[in-house]
Amino acid sequence: MIPNETIVAIATAPGIGAIGVVRLSGSNAINVADAIFIGKKLRAQGSHTIHFGRICDSKNNIEIDEVVVSIFKNPKSYTGEDVVEISGHGAPFVLQQIVNLCIAEGARPALAGEFTQRAFLNGKMDLAQAEAVADLIAANSLAAQQTALKQLRGGISSDLKTLREQLINFAALIELELDFGEEDVDFADRSQLGSLIDQLKLETQKLIQSFELGNAIKNGVSVAIIGKPNAGKSTLLNALLNEDRAIVSDIAGTTRDTIEEVLNINGILFRLIDTAGIRHSKGDTIEDIGIERSKANAEKADIIIHLHDMTEADEDTFEWLSPFQEKVIDIFNKYDQWEENNRKKVLNVDLNSFGNHISAKNKEGIEMVKQLLFEKINKGVINTENTIVTNIRHRDALQKLSESLAEIESAMHNNISGELLAIDIRRSLYFLGSITGEVEIDRDILGTIFGKFCIGK
Amino acid sequence: MIPNETIVAIATAPGIGAIGVVRLSGSNAINVADAIFIGKKLRAQGSHTIHFGRICDSKNNIEIDEVVVSIFKNPKSYTGEDVVEISGHGAPFVLQQIVNLCIAEGARPALAGEFTQRAFLNGKMDLAQAEAVADLIAANSLAAQQTALKQLRGGISSDLKTLREQLINFAALIELELDFGEEDVDFADRSQLGSLIDQLKLETQKLIQSFELGNAIKNGVSVAIIGKPNAGKSTLLNALLNEDRAIVSDIAGTTRDTIEEVLNINGILFRLIDTAGIRHSKGDTIEDIGIERSKANAEKADIIIHLHDMTEADEDTFEWLSPFQEKVIDIFNKYDQWEENNRKKVLNVDLNSFGNHISAKNKEGIEMVKQLLFEKINKGVINTENTIVTNIRHRDALQKLSESLAEIESAMHNNISGELLAIDIRRSLYFLGSITGEVEIDRDILGTIFGKFCIGK
Repeated sequence: MIPNETIVAIATAPGIGAIGVVRLSGSNAINVADAIFIGKKLRAQGSHTIHFGRICDSKNNIEIDEVVVSIFKNPKSYTGEDVVEISGHGAPFVLQQIVNLCIAEGARPALAGEFTQRAFLNGKMDLAQAEAVADLIAANSLAAQQTALKQLRGGISSDLKTLREQLINFAALIELELDFGEEDVDFADRSQLGSLIDQLKLETQKLIQSFELGNAIKNGVSVAIIGKPNAGKSTLLNALLNEDRAIVSDIAGTTRDTIEEVLNINGILFRLIDTAGIRHSKGDTIEDIGIERSKANAEKADIIIHLHDMTEADEDTFEWLSPFQEKVIDIFNKYDQWEENNRKKVLNVDLNSFGNHISAKNKEGIEMVKQLLFEKINKGVINTENTIVTNIRHRDALQKLSESLAEIESAMHNNISGELLAIDIRRSLYFLGSITGEVEIDRDILGTIFGKFCIGK
Repeated sequence: MIPNETIVAIATAPGIGAIGVVRLSGSNAINVADAIFIGKKLRAQGSHTIHFGRICDSKNNIEIDEVVVSIFKNPKSYTGEDVVEISGHGAPFVLQQIVNLCIAEGARPALAGEFTQRAFLNGKMDLAQAEAVADLIAANSLAAQQTALKQLRGGISSDLKTLREQLINFAALIELELDFGEEDVDFADRSQLGSLIDQLKLETQKLIQSFELGNAIKNGVSVAIIGKPNAGKSTLLNALLNEDRAIVSDIAGTTRDTIEEVLNINGILFRLIDTAGIRHSKGDTIEDIGIERSKANAEKADIIIHLHDMTEADEDTFEWLSPFQEKVIDIFNKYDQWEENNRKKVLNVDLNSFGNHISAKNKEGIEMVKQLLFEKINKGVINTENTIVTNIRHRDALQKLSESLAEIESAMHNNISGELLAIDIRRSLYFLGSITGEVEIDRDILGTIFGKFCIGK
């Protein structure tokens, strides 16, 4: 990759729209645009100005479109390079011809995420911010959008910045001690270092803990509703969806096997998976195939709602659920009938022994079910004002950082030599810096990160 | 519709992209944008300038996106009103929130085509040009794009403009005569009027004739390939598609029942329909179902290629094709074998009697087949430099104009009174003007025209 090569791509969504935008970036972007634009001389125009004109294939004497062209001059642009955005009629056929013309004039097709990668390489944003761009574009809930936007505007980077700077300072002081090796001086105050490491550990733990919620925000939460036939699963599903059915945009790649319905609770998308298989029952005996399907759903699900029928005593056909107990929420349904029948069937059981009881039919207790679902995800009682880690790469780096901080602690505890301590600190600094890209990031890792972007971003 | 109401819509294609654009138009557009934009005061900025900032829902203290905002001040904008384009991250979820915020600030959702309708109502383009915008956006071939672009840049409007002005002049003169009714004066030179009507008739006929090609350009041409089993239909299909397979973008609504493959000839899309049904044959007898399907395809098709096998003499099973003879192209295949066998099977028939002979297997004569297909559409030997009518509304108006011109001619021939002549001319002028919208167009017709546009255009 030659960073200054001029790249070009359609930047708007594929398909037909009123407007479509072709984006050029690179040292030659304005010249390429000038070569195909009939109107003003773009090179002579100021940054952040817009110009109406036509795109022409002058070699073949073909007019392509009437457009408006926006000019962003380096460094005040998305990529930090000269950027030209050609806004034409939103016809894929027309936009592709504009791209082809730009290529004929020396631009090359942009790789996935290459505009944002350049923004990162040119210091317009750090790596965590660049990753947030992709998250923001994929956001389909308010929580996902807000988390991505927070990360785009600093987020994890600014949380870690001060601590990282202090740690760099300590690393420098300890390395300075090494230069005075013979003289046994301590520039770096070990107790101050210790309390900094404590702070870092705390912050790191907080961030790692936020990942479960972050992942739920980003990818949604799968919920399997399990229960005997006639326990009221469909009634519960309908009651849950009644007014809070999420509007999910049809995004490529979100289609999954067994998703039934999507529910939005506090901005997080819960995918309610219907365990349809369990309905294939004969008499009272649930068929094996039903159990197998339910098991498969239960295994895959993040949360299992086990729906009990309060009016039936025999619940012990669900032994197979026990390995998943940690993710099970027990809900007791048909409170309406239970009250009506006044324990006719339920023998000597106290209402309190049922725990969470609802009446799906009468829509009683539905808010509680939602609250239980949300709390199951938001275990750490995380305030959404805090930074939430949604990126698995960041989580992994934070985990390595956490281990590395533990090593520093133990090194200090064992009064290990400054040389080795410096190495441990440098390791921690590497993991810290890898999140924001402030250390040199492997080309392959960059490729993986930006390869997930769409073309044109 | 209050023309100055501020309207808002997502202007880019639905789905995920790098960039998405929300467009505002109306007298309050800049104020609405100012209310949700954190950055510079947009009201104070010049036209055709771009500003980086953030979109915020300040009432709920929620940040929505980082954006660049483009300002186009009345009248130098697409609609002729104040226009603001908010270019954000291409997430449907994010863009919809921006739209919602604009609505909360007093804008209302734009109707389909409403931006372009305002451009028309504000005199930024005539009606034929406005219609060309939709055609351009839907264009999926070079011919369709070029025709739409030509229309967008004047096209039919400018072809008719001078003639219309002259006719208006005559109408005025004749009406002036009526004011001097008693005095028997002729301000309008009847022979000059006669030659103007001749010119108009000629131009109108040319335009009406161009519609067949125009329709082919816009909607493509369906071609059914009919022939006995083993006549080489699939081989011909493959030979035709070999290098000229059209790249057709997946546009909603273009899916049709029996389309098999699309071939691009001189920029026009030919949809080659495989008559698969005819293959279900038993021995030599083509089953009824096969014939029925072929008939159905033949009826629907714009062109039928009847593929004969030169090495077989019995062709008379295709009597049912005779009602469609006008759209049939007869092609004789297997010239290679015919030569090889040296008339072994074909008895006493001269090669010339076969007309268009090809060898699909050896790819001989394929260019000729393409030429024949193209000529079948471009009957009027229309030069693509000329204006081509693609719009059925224009064709209908032209046909009514043509009838009305004939009435003027006959009126003049019969020395009809100036009063009646003036009425006839006014009728012609109405049809002429209805194409470009220079006469008052019925609200329902406008609704139909712009209702076909996408939202945001």
